[in-house]
Amino acid sequence: MAEPPRSASALDLEDPVYRAAVVDLLGVIAYGEISAFDRLAQDARSAPTLPDKSELARMAAAEFGHFERLCDQLRGLGADPYQAMAPFVAPVDAFHVRTASSDWLEGLVTAYVGDGLAADFYAEIASFVDADTRAVVLESLRDAGQSAFVVDRVRAAIAADPRVAGRLALWGRRLMGEALIQAQRVAAERDELTALLTGGVDRPGLDLVSIGRLFTRLTENHTRRMESLGLAA
Amino acid sequence: MAEPPRSASALDLEDPVYRAAVVDLLGVIAYGEISAFDRLAQDARSAPTLPDKSELARMAAAEFGHFERLCDQLRGLGADPYQAMAPFVAPVDAFHVRTASSDWLEGLVTAYVGDGLAADFYAEIASFVDADTRAVVLESLRDAGQSAFVVDRVRAAIAADPRVAGRLALWGRRLMGEALIQAQRVAAERDELTALLTGGVDRPGLDLVSIGRLFTRLTENHTRRMESLGLAA
Repeated sequence: MAEPPRSASALDLEDPVYRAAVVDLLGVIAYGEISAFDRLAQDARSAPTLPDKSELARMAAAEFGHFERLCDQLRGLGADPYQAMAPFVAPVDAFHVRTASSDWLEGLVTAYVGDGLAADFYAEIASFVDADTRAVVLESLRDAGQSAFVVDRVRAAIAADPRVAGRLALWGRRLMGEALIQAQRVAAERDELTALLTGGVDRPGLDLVSIGRLFTRLTENHTRRMESLGLAA
Repeated sequence: MAEPPRSASALDLEDPVYRAAVVDLLGVIAYGEISAFDRLAQDARSAPTLPDKSELARMAAAEFGHFERLCDQLRGLGADPYQAMAPFVAPVDAFHVRTASSDWLEGLVTAYVGDGLAADFYAEIASFVDADTRAVVLESLRDAGQSAFVVDRVRAAIAADPRVAGRLALWGRRLMGEALIQAQRVAAERDELTALLTGGVDRPGLDLVSIGRLFTRLTENHTRRMESLGLAA
């Protein structure tokens, strides 16, 4: 993250515009977490072994823990967590419908590459919020054990059958594309949230060059994750 | 639970027959917990609202926490948790296949009545094991929040449409019947586990009258749970 956090004075939760942005940010991440819980629990059903199943279930339970922490934070701000999540149900659900995995390996790639991409993006936004909100956001984005497990299983699958790599590389590109589509949809509909990045009436934001750099960072991290799986990005 | 625990001296984990029984007991409960996780996560998908969905997801995550605790206990005994669970995969899966709920309310009744029945049964067995094993078992059987939530939702559904009560009463009886069938299957196949209740070469067990009383207690608790839902047992 290249840009430093704004000064705390500009990040006042008494300011209704800033507060709305924080409620949006916590709401979209919370709905993402319960959706990740749901998807991982579904993927656990297609696990080839009981240890694999329990590993996916463990990740799902961890995501639910993050969800609860975000709901607590929203309640602490006097917001209803479910109202805060409501605007993001349609885009997040659309992402999951369009990236419904057809097998165990696709599900694993989504858990690592898709969740990693979302985590990077929210972490970028978190550098523009107050320290308390940032701490809760970053904690909720912590790897739930996906990385090591998925890398191990996907590499083993490719070693056993190299043809798998081509199919999963396409899958990774599709995840990136669908994530961008839904992120743009959210950005277009949620002005306060978007203004955290792009600036508002009384707050400076990223200029176009900085937004370009942000996307470069996201793309580089995505490529690194794909490479760690042994996949072309 | 009417019968007192046996003296600790007879419950020696160095005794391979007793140890096998404890590994079986922890294994069957552990597989029951991860199955409950799976079923609750599935039920969460059919929840009518996001708060209901998150409530079911919370229960699922709690069951997974119990599962992990039981696996740790098995490892502490030098047992492989997945080997310990293996003999119980078929009967537990059969129970869940035969009691796959066709809607949200049936799922709720299963989460309360089915899990309650299993918890009562394991708690009875737990009174025949050493204190350390018993503590882990009883902790893993703790209500994961099912009771209050399910009673509230099912009673509200019956108030809105009294015809629901007849269908759910039948469902409760089916749960009881399928649970007894699978419990008998386990009892027939797992001698060491069964001997915890019925006694073995060097351990006294329950006589037929006491076994009859045990089933009376299970049935009474089942009836009480059904009544708390507003259902005839």
